[in-house]
Amino acid sequence: MKSVLAETAGKIRSMEIRGAGKIAREAVFALKSHAESLDDQNSSAFITKMRSAGEVLLSTRPTAVSLPNAVNIVLSGMNGEDDTGEIRAGIVSRADDFIERSNSAVRKIGEIGARRISDGDTVLTHCNSQVAIGCILEAHRQGKDIEVFATEVRPRNQGLLTIKTLNDAGIKTNFIVDSAARYFMKNVDIVVIGTDAVTVNGSVVNKIGTSQIALAAHEARTRVMVAAETYKFAPKTLTGELIKIEERDNSEVLSPEIAEIMPNVTVRNPAFDITPAEYIDLIVTEEGAIPPEMAYIIIKDYLGWKIGDFDRDF
Amino acid sequence: MKSVLAETAGKIRSMEIRGAGKIAREAVFALKSHAESLDDQNSSAFITKMRSAGEVLLSTRPTAVSLPNAVNIVLSGMNGEDDTGEIRAGIVSRADDFIERSNSAVRKIGEIGARRISDGDTVLTHCNSQVAIGCILEAHRQGKDIEVFATEVRPRNQGLLTIKTLNDAGIKTNFIVDSAARYFMKNVDIVVIGTDAVTVNGSVVNKIGTSQIALAAHEARTRVMVAAETYKFAPKTLTGELIKIEERDNSEVLSPEIAEIMPNVTVRNPAFDITPAEYIDLIVTEEGAIPPEMAYIIIKDYLGWKIGDFDRDF
Amino acid sequence: MKSVLAETAGKIRSMEIRGAGKIAREAVFALKSHAESLDDQNSSAFITKMRSAGEVLLSTRPTAVSLPNAVNIVLSGMNGEDDTGEIRAGIVSRADDFIERSNSAVRKIGEIGARRISDGDTVLTHCNSQVAIGCILEAHRQGKDIEVFATEVRPRNQGLLTIKTLNDAGIKTNFIVDSAARYFMKNVDIVVIGTDAVTVNGSVVNKIGTSQIALAAHEARTRVMVAAETYKFAPKTLTGELIKIEERDNSEVLSPEIAEIMPNVTVRNPAFDITPAEYIDLIVTEEGAIPPEMAYIIIKDYLGWKIGDFDRDF
Amino acid sequence: MKSVLAETAGKIRSMEIRGAGKIAREAVFALKSHAESLDDQNSSAFITKMRSAGEVLLSTRPTAVSLPNAVNIVLSGMNGEDDTGEIRAGIVSRADDFIERSNSAVRKIGEIGARRISDGDTVLTHCNSQVAIGCILEAHRQGKDIEVFATEVRPRNQGLLTIKTLNDAGIKTNFIVDSAARYFMKNVDIVVIGTDAVTVNGSVVNKIGTSQIALAAHEARTRVMVAAETYKFAPKTLTGELIKIEERDNSEVLSPEIAEIMPNVTVRNPAFDITPAEYIDLIVTEEGAIPPEMAYIIIKDYLGWKIGDFDRDF
Amino acid sequence: MKSVLAETAGKIRSMEIRGAGKIAREAVFALKSHAESLDDQNSSAFITKMRSAGEVLLSTRPTAVSLPNAVNIVLSGMNGEDDTGEIRAGIVSRADDFIERSNSAVRKIGEIGARRISDGDTVLTHCNSQVAIGCILEAHRQGKDIEVFATEVRPRNQGLLTIKTLNDAGIKTNFIVDSAARYFMKNVDIVVIGTDAVTVNGSVVNKIGTSQIALAAHEARTRVMVAAETYKFAPKTLTGELIKIEERDNSEVLSPEIAEIMPNVTVRNPAFDITPAEYIDLIVTEEGAIPPEMAYIIIKDYLGWKIGDFDRDF
Amino acid sequence: MKSVLAETAGKIRSMEIRGAGKIAREAVFALKSHAESLDDQNSSAFITKMRSAGEVLLSTRPTAVSLPNAVNIVLSGMNGEDDTGEIRAGIVSRADDFIERSNSAVRKIGEIGARRISDGDTVLTHCNSQVAIGCILEAHRQGKDIEVFATEVRPRNQGLLTIKTLNDAGIKTNFIVDSAARYFMKNVDIVVIGTDAVTVNGSVVNKIGTSQIALAAHEARTRVMVAAETYKFAPKTLTGELIKIEERDNSEVLSPEIAEIMPNVTVRNPAFDITPAEYIDLIVTEEGAIPPEMAYIIIKDYLGWKIGDFDRDF
Repeated sequence: MKSVLAETAGKIRSMEIRGAGKIAREAVFALKSHAESLDDQNSSAFITKMRSAGEVLLSTRPTAVSLPNAVNIVLSGMNGEDDTGEIRAGIVSRADDFIERSNSAVRKIGEIGARRISDGDTVLTHCNSQVAIGCILEAHRQGKDIEVFATEVRPRNQGLLTIKTLNDAGIKTNFIVDSAARYFMKNVDIVVIGTDAVTVNGSVVNKIGTSQIALAAHEARTRVMVAAETYKFAPKTLTGELIKIEERDNSEVLSPEIAEIMPNVTVRNPAFDITPAEYIDLIVTEEGAIPPEMAYIIIKDYLGWKIGDFDRDF
Repeated sequence: MKSVLAETAGKIRSMEIRGAGKIAREAVFALKSHAESLDDQNSSAFITKMRSAGEVLLSTRPTAVSLPNAVNIVLSGMNGEDDTGEIRAGIVSRADDFIERSNSAVRKIGEIGARRISDGDTVLTHCNSQVAIGCILEAHRQGKDIEVFATEVRPRNQGLLTIKTLNDAGIKTNFIVDSAARYFMKNVDIVVIGTDAVTVNGSVVNKIGTSQIALAAHEARTRVMVAAETYKFAPKTLTGELIKIEERDNSEVLSPEIAEIMPNVTVRNPAFDITPAEYIDLIVTEEGAIPPEMAYIIIKDYLGWKIGDFDRDF
Repeated sequence: MKSVLAETAGKIRSMEIRGAGKIAREAVFALKSHAESLDDQNSSAFITKMRSAGEVLLSTRPTAVSLPNAVNIVLSGMNGEDDTGEIRAGIVSRADDFIERSNSAVRKIGEIGARRISDGDTVLTHCNSQVAIGCILEAHRQGKDIEVFATEVRPRNQGLLTIKTLNDAGIKTNFIVDSAARYFMKNVDIVVIGTDAVTVNGSVVNKIGTSQIALAAHEARTRVMVAAETYKFAPKTLTGELIKIEERDNSEVLSPEIAEIMPNVTVRNPAFDITPAEYIDLIVTEEGAIPPEMAYIIIKDYLGWKIGDFDRDF
Repeated sequence: MKSVLAETAGKIRSMEIRGAGKIAREAVFALKSHAESLDDQNSSAFITKMRSAGEVLLSTRPTAVSLPNAVNIVLSGMNGEDDTGEIRAGIVSRADDFIERSNSAVRKIGEIGARRISDGDTVLTHCNSQVAIGCILEAHRQGKDIEVFATEVRPRNQGLLTIKTLNDAGIKTNFIVDSAARYFMKNVDIVVIGTDAVTVNGSVVNKIGTSQIALAAHEARTRVMVAAETYKFAPKTLTGELIKIEERDNSEVLSPEIAEIMPNVTVRNPAFDITPAEYIDLIVTEEGAIPPEMAYIIIKDYLGWKIGDFDRDF
Repeated sequence: MKSVLAETAGKIRSMEIRGAGKIAREAVFALKSHAESLDDQNSSAFITKMRSAGEVLLSTRPTAVSLPNAVNIVLSGMNGEDDTGEIRAGIVSRADDFIERSNSAVRKIGEIGARRISDGDTVLTHCNSQVAIGCILEAHRQGKDIEVFATEVRPRNQGLLTIKTLNDAGIKTNFIVDSAARYFMKNVDIVVIGTDAVTVNGSVVNKIGTSQIALAAHEARTRVMVAAETYKFAPKTLTGELIKIEERDNSEVLSPEIAEIMPNVTVRNPAFDITPAEYIDLIVTEEGAIPPEMAYIIIKDYLGWKIGDFDRDF
Repeated sequence: MKSVLAETAGKIRSMEIRGAGKIAREAVFALKSHAESLDDQNSSAFITKMRSAGEVLLSTRPTAVSLPNAVNIVLSGMNGEDDTGEIRAGIVSRADDFIERSNSAVRKIGEIGARRISDGDTVLTHCNSQVAIGCILEAHRQGKDIEVFATEVRPRNQGLLTIKTLNDAGIKTNFIVDSAARYFMKNVDIVVIGTDAVTVNGSVVNKIGTSQIALAAHEARTRVMVAAETYKFAPKTLTGELIKIEERDNSEVLSPEIAEIMPNVTVRNPAFDITPAEYIDLIVTEEGAIPPEMAYIIIKDYLGWKIGDFDRDF
């Protein structure tokens, strides 16, 4: 029978498990199960086995931001303990704690973010971020009278999911093409978006088009709030690594039939872009609202990374 | 049998005749035909009839920018002449001249604009402007090695027409969603776009999304060149009138089936936006390359408008 | 008995006649009266006398912007005529024309400016400019639903006059201290102000505080419209002359009793500041709406000035 | 006889005790007195009573920024101690320490801030902040030749207090209306202001008009230094709460007699505005000079707040 | 014996005659001499010969900006005249007029520009422009107390010529390396520079480093004034042509000995750069002070160019 | 025989030992030697002697940034230890650790910084910073195809050293005068520079000209990366102290012979300028990549400084 670890690793690799939060929680749960399944033994052997398990998980999606955060949080405390039982107990405790905090992060961020949306505000959102929409829903739930502009989000049209959620919540929503963001921006009070990753210098990696919207917001003195669980902060940027911007399938943008008859045309389909810190007012995490420049502190103090970590074992 | 005037007016109203240039030339031709069809008579009666003909044409599409320019150019010289024959001859001559200049405008603008595109340049264009693409094609024809980024142009996807033309000309072209403009902008040398109207203070009214692209260009020190026939300059803005931004059919953005099940969602579908003069480096017309602030001179000196014109007859 | 010329000159000097428009019209009327009162005589003698009359008027308030414009418009045509009667008639005609155009300028500017204020707009105005308020009143008269923010305008509190006028017209008005302009700016759609002078490079000289408000407007993508009769355009800036910023009486800011006990404190009380062209979207004149950079054309083409004029006689 | 706690709470509520520093120190002193007045008892009962005392004080002015900081600093250490005597001693020690540090904060900030003012500098200040003026006075005391511009500060004219202090210190001072800040800004070397609150993302809440001055400073490459005791940093903004901008009595701006005859006019009289971090170069606290983005660290490391604190007891 | 025309053409080609003004005046004088030397003859033959003479001169330095302006001004009026004598007289008259205006341009610009430099101002200049320095000298001559910063101007160190002139005039001058411009800019009141060419959209082509200085001036709200004779305005940019930025000899930057031992190093030595209109406040010409956007008017109205001119004969 | 301490102090004072890193390491080594050379004795006497040694070193170059960092790191831990032997061992251990980390800092920064330079990038560097060049060399070593622009760096031409190093490494390099930075900036992907000091608010003090280049980079959306060992962070700016910008010998800029004949000319030769944090994207230290605003954390957490440290002993 396949172990939980192997099974989880497989599902992350095959993208059956996807989404930064889900990946993180499932990986943490797999490490906990693995620790529980290991026999009592010499503590350094135990640690070695757990590190191997961590490596297995990390190798499944090398570019996922939340995965190293999850693995590091669970395994980084192992060295300070002497006894296998204690090490195991530490892992279990940190795993449980992470899962619980992760599960409540969306709710907490919603509560914190909602306070930044005032009664009467017009909000603009881009893409379909659960945690960004959570802020909007919570503000609405508190009885604030708000109106939302939601973009279409080409090429995959995730905006349809967003307007579905907002519609169902009874929020007055305007649906616009991505190109119309600046047209309406002068009358928007706050832009609320999610993120795929936050870099060490406070740049936000999010759905293609975000940086353009943030630029237009900055031009119109419109505030930009980013909702981000702490596990979205990218530790490797601490060591200078750039977030890799994946380019997706051409057929999302141009049908193969048309592409075929245009040999001089190439589709460029980057999934994300990078919004510089100067266009962002606030990042709301479950640990509180911070300016983007504080990303370094989150990576260092909350996620527990430092330079050396990347060169040596957990 | 319907007169050319009546027939043309009908076709403009029904949008059988469309496009700023075509509308202008057909209206001018109709006025010329009308002048030729009128009997010899008292010159003031002749003038009155021609003015009525002008009014008929103007009423067909009150928001078309090129129409008043065309009518004004043909009819504004009538008062200085005494004899019906001379008046008619003047109309015919001005009409022929306008049509000829209009027909050659795209070519002339292409030649002028192409000089601003250097060998090795990366060009970005938005929407499907014949005159903007003309500049790019001419630069390519001159043997300059250029590469183009063309946007999709939601919601009507006119970008497909643009990449078709560029592909057929053998120009290396990249097709991107509208949201990706800023992502690639740092490496773009020049943005080349057309326009639907140029206002008296040099703002450019063009396809939704243009202002957002121009803003991103300005942020990256990328030049923005607008290609515009002089009849695209909007005389009524001289008297403070705002260009009306038409909102188009919701179904362009959201299918009626989906719209129906989302009662709290409204589609906002503006066809154009307004790019302020400060984000534009140059407007290329058939009369030469000008800074956007010179729009006033084009309206006054080339199109022959002044304040009083709007209050009294031609 | 004192001549009209002498009387008018005296009243301008003593500031009994004040305000750019009134000064201009009264000076023009005095020149007309003077021309009518002069006997028939050798035409060059007549011209010499009229030039002296012009000099008399110009010397009354050397810094008034409208005075040289008024005198120049009336007298600059004298050289092309041979006969005293014709010269006199020309003066009378140009004088009557100027007075009529000047009188209708406020109304015309109101009409043009009102078109730039849309239904539902929030407008901010500073100081108490008749012509700026005229635009707001006309927009309200046309049935547009507008709301105004009006500043206090320290140190002379001209804002009280403004809110009185707006209140009486039934316009919803908010009264704020000058310092609060940026606080409310994000929700303002258009700033509408008058001007004391427009320089050749499109800078606007207006009540102290204007440039600060225009800067805050620019920061928030709020449009700035300046209402200015053409005689407010400053011809001498064509020759490099700077507009002199007058500092007014200290007691406007600090009571003499308090000033006396603070020997180390000096009041600095500039009456105007200079708003650069880059923060202004449009200047509305009775000749139409123009971008600020077109000030040069107004000075040259409408007011008829050129470099040489400043070195030689009219 | 009323307890110190009750008396202090009453005076804070009635605004007999006012000013962020005074409120904080008096509240801390009241907690210390309260701890000393309580009998020896079970430690958890003691803690409960102290928490109640904290709540009493917090309820007196829910929007005061320094109050929760003061209460938190004194009470947050109670949980780590077992014995009532020790708990009381801890409270007394932390209270004494806070009061001493608070009392010396103005002097320390003056010393640190004065180093940023160079010999020959022109300084601009707005409102009447003791701690900002302290920096200026200290620079003067050190023999630096400085000149100050001080604003009038409508509607309450606190500028008069400022120029009085500067005059008495023998500092060359210029008194200007608030609107004149930009006029003189080009020649100002540094703007020095106080603050009512600093938010978690480094925005500064200060007297209305501050943000406009900071904007004009940024436009002219003039540095902006904010003087702020650490207890001015607003912990609740960590949880997304916005600083509430109080609007004050209309009669400060418009006399009731005038207001009465203008039914369409409303006074808007916000006491503060918010200056974004990007317009601030440095915040000087008694713990050192920091960039505004470091506000988060002050709140977290110096004031000892974290997210959970707001949901549970001290 | 060589004709004046041939001789002048030779000297321009060999760069014996150099400098925009000198080239223009010598070319004009050569055309005048040529017209005077031609026998009376059929007028169309005369015109043909003069056009050939114009072509000869134009071919000597195809990139010189002032040459086509000079030739055009002298020859463009030929078509309106019938008689050889009249044509010749017209040429002589226009030539004399041009030479006289050109000779007085530096003085006139100095007078106009000096008015923009106020008593007490700090001025920064770059390179060694006779006409820019003329403004500074005139301001000094008028008794204004000014101080100048002059740059070194690598790689040819023309700054040495500038400080020599300023020193000899008794003006307090500071000599700085090019890199130090921003360091001192905050305290500079006005930047005064010359230009090699002004383009149709108001960009200024001047010595390498100018655009960087203008950018730093803009950042610090320091005004930038460009001194430019009208014959420096580049007519060909009207037709979209770019000003060619010449790269000069590598040995100006790197000695051949060093260059030889560094095979991977290439010297890039552009002589000029392009300052965009947005960083320029005013261009001072002998026809008056204008905003940069007015370059189009100078080219069209003062220099007499229009699109067609470039396609057909004079 | 002279002690190591005395000898090192002498060499630092005479500038035989120079360069921030070398000074720091030699000072640390001298303290270690001194600790080892002191006899066993009363611990407080030992501490006093070590503090005196620290003072001796600090007095050698009061403006060196790295010196107080080095001394503080070695001596600040003395108070927590009771026994002379332990204190000495602590000093030796911290000294060895500092020297080792300092020696490896350049390599570590090179590795981190190189990750920010992508294949195909064009890099611009200014001056001759070992650690900035290290990033470039490492990127090249990793096989990335890069091209570098290097400035001349007047007045001391350190650019020659830079191009020598780059040439020898086989990197395609362009050598330009300092004034040409903006000309080429549009096509530069990243600016990489070193620094002499980083202030507490993230400003970077570096070779004159750096701030001008960073400004031009910001204008063109070009990233700016600063390479800085942590001992370059300036602790005294924490207490408000400004970095003193030294002006160097006039003869670097103007030969004494020329200077002599120009009595009205003064050379101003600042060695450094200050680049504000807003123009910097990232500072790469051996502890990781941080946004400039994090300088405070480096000073506080890594270098161990706090306000009180400057008032009392180590």
